Amino acid sequence: MFAELKEKGERARRAARRLATLDTATKDNALKAIAETIMEREPEILSANDHDIDAGQEAGLSEALLDRLLLTVHRLEGIANDVLAVAALPDPVGETFEARMLPNGLRIGKRRVPVGVIGVIYESRPNVTVDISALCLKSGNAAILRGGKEAVHTNRALAAAVAEGCEKSGVPQGAIQLIKSPDRALVKDMLTANQYIDMIIPRGGAGLHKFALENATIPVITGGIGICHIYVDRDADPEKVTPIVHNAKVQRPTVCNALDTLLIHRDVAEALLPQIADDLARAGVELRCEPRALSILVGHPAVRSAGPDDFDTEFLSLVLAVKVVDSLDEALDHIYRHGTQHSDAIVTENYSHAMRFVDEVDSAAVYVNASTRFTDGGQFGLGAEVAISTQRLHARGPMGLKELTTYKWVIFGEGQVRG
Amino acid sequence: MFAELKEKGERARRAARRLATLDTATKDNALKAIAETIMEREPEILSANDHDIDAGQEAGLSEALLDRLLLTVHRLEGIANDVLAVAALPDPVGETFEARMLPNGLRIGKRRVPVGVIGVIYESRPNVTVDISALCLKSGNAAILRGGKEAVHTNRALAAAVAEGCEKSGVPQGAIQLIKSPDRALVKDMLTANQYIDMIIPRGGAGLHKFALENATIPVITGGIGICHIYVDRDADPEKVTPIVHNAKVQRPTVCNALDTLLIHRDVAEALLPQIADDLARAGVELRCEPRALSILVGHPAVRSAGPDDFDTEFLSLVLAVKVVDSLDEALDHIYRHGTQHSDAIVTENYSHAMRFVDEVDSAAVYVNASTRFTDGGQFGLGAEVAISTQRLHARGPMGLKELTTYKWVIFGEGQVRG
Repeated sequence: MFAELKEKGERARRAARRLATLDTATKDNALKAIAETIMEREPEILSANDHDIDAGQEAGLSEALLDRLLLTVHRLEGIANDVLAVAALPDPVGETFEARMLPNGLRIGKRRVPVGVIGVIYESRPNVTVDISALCLKSGNAAILRGGKEAVHTNRALAAAVAEGCEKSGVPQGAIQLIKSPDRALVKDMLTANQYIDMIIPRGGAGLHKFALENATIPVITGGIGICHIYVDRDADPEKVTPIVHNAKVQRPTVCNALDTLLIHRDVAEALLPQIADDLARAGVELRCEPRALSILVGHPAVRSAGPDDFDTEFLSLVLAVKVVDSLDEALDHIYRHGTQHSDAIVTENYSHAMRFVDEVDSAAVYVNASTRFTDGGQFGLGAEVAISTQRLHARGPMGLKELTTYKWVIFGEGQVRG
Repeated sequence: MFAELKEKGERARRAARRLATLDTATKDNALKAIAETIMEREPEILSANDHDIDAGQEAGLSEALLDRLLLTVHRLEGIANDVLAVAALPDPVGETFEARMLPNGLRIGKRRVPVGVIGVIYESRPNVTVDISALCLKSGNAAILRGGKEAVHTNRALAAAVAEGCEKSGVPQGAIQLIKSPDRALVKDMLTANQYIDMIIPRGGAGLHKFALENATIPVITGGIGICHIYVDRDADPEKVTPIVHNAKVQRPTVCNALDTLLIHRDVAEALLPQIADDLARAGVELRCEPRALSILVGHPAVRSAGPDDFDTEFLSLVLAVKVVDSLDEALDHIYRHGTQHSDAIVTENYSHAMRFVDEVDSAAVYVNASTRFTDGGQFGLGAEVAISTQRLHARGPMGLKELTTYKWVIFGEGQVRG
């Protein structure tokens, strides 16, 4: 194991033990101090970011990657404000739930406690450094962060601000640590450092998630990948169809809850597909259609034939796969076979179809008559979001502060023994 | 991948899709049919068990292992009754919780759904075949079972009874399947069959858990290993001490929630240790003492000096490690360093010490003035238990039906789009 990981792992463990019982006021004061320190250190952080941007340009990073990497005064203020927003959220730690008295007089309940040490492996966005630090701190977890090499200077500057905010406020040393080594082999070590890390959160593309899943012995929160479907039922309200499809595809096409596949019932395809296609074409969306959809839309701008992988692709761009189906059953089957259990929606006024859809589609978020774009911690009322899980255990869908906790059973007795 | 695993994996996936929406009455009828079939097939099951017992004796299995393997009419009735008890429990699937209306009118809630396909890898006890089948079926999960080679004939006979009960009752084929191949390499394949299995439950010794943890890419429920502590505080009620220690150590020493280490405050050690030792000696317990405890107990029967590993050992037998500590802090530190986060208890009348203990000991179950033996699904009121988790994610401590489920977010809208 890398010496840096061992050293930081041991510090994180020690910190986690103390963080678990740290009072809310101390944690909130630390979050406020972090926000202040970030703004105080603005020139230094932006200059570190300039450094990364220059290096990125030299290395030929795409405009999209450079934009994700870029910090501005405005973006930095946004980051600081997000930390203050986390300070304002309720502390999940210490809540007792499912408490009751057993017949033998034992008072038993589950008490919410931090997970322990969270390992976060992420790519270019430097805001993750601060976001995750704030969420881990508020939920009483220590964190070991491993950012992408493109953002190394920015991440160090931000992590230094986080550390200073913590230190000012009585948060144990080692609560939030950034890995310095740029060696990629360290990531593999992190994924098997069970003695130091309790949960791994990968934040990045499909490749990173796959790598983490295949190599980790620590539980991994997989997520952030979504092939999202909307099924327009025979009994859809035509007024609702285009706005929902438009919003799901166009409002922010680069994110995981954006629409990838439109399924439409054959009885309404001829009436509705052209107007959907017109609307999407105006927004610059390319439609990749299977033969029946293509035959309806032939001659429309930006329509082409679907390729073999188009129904198994998360586009993250203004591209939409389109298929005409014969029935709700065919739609359910298609989603079962091609979905990623992220976010899927039906548009229908038919009560039984709506109920079957929510019963039978087993995705993290299943919608009736609404855009898939709502799958988000903020939109769901969690206040903040650490990831969107598409795995099945521990947490599904948007994960907020509560999902960074676990529980212990606490039992108060007066001498009870088992008979 | 083994052909048998691939074939059974595909069948399990198909079954799981249908099981997820199977109504409670059908599941309960299947459980009743399984219990009936087990009793009808009693001669055949017991004869299969004879076969395994004979083979076990020839192979030189220990008396303890042979006893775990042995079925009798009485034990088989117990197994059938446990199935009926599961039928009587509430169905966890379909419950909606944390439901609310968002400001934009979206009605959002979490709906409890099965995990999917559960892979269970277990050792000699054949009752696990039926127990796990019943719990998986009731919670709407498919199961792929891999039992130990010692119980191969018994497991096949029991699995045939389970399959017949399922078939009679309209449960989809492939809901519960037993792996036939005795090849150990198949276990490793099971642990990485992410396309077919959603959760792995190892039931057996520390070696099996370690193997599963190190080799699985599927989430593993680790558990069943407990180095359990009782700390007798300076302010313990002397009347409560011996009964609690006796019960925790003696009532069933072979299980994971039995006591392994007694920590006692120096101010009460001289007064209390001799009476504890007398009581335990009468029950046949051997005490392995560190020097200070040894100096108090010198000359007592069945007392010896602790070896270097005795405070890091799950004894699963009538052996207890004993240590005198200077303070609550030393006890907390000892538990932090040597514990396995299973079950730990304090005996005290001191309110602040009790509160510090439950705050600072981070185990699946933390007790004040009660025996650690209560950490059990039945005792905690869960009705049944599939495992006792000592990991931190998804579930901690006793796992019942609810812990075999996950949730999906269900969102009902009237055309809402994200702004």
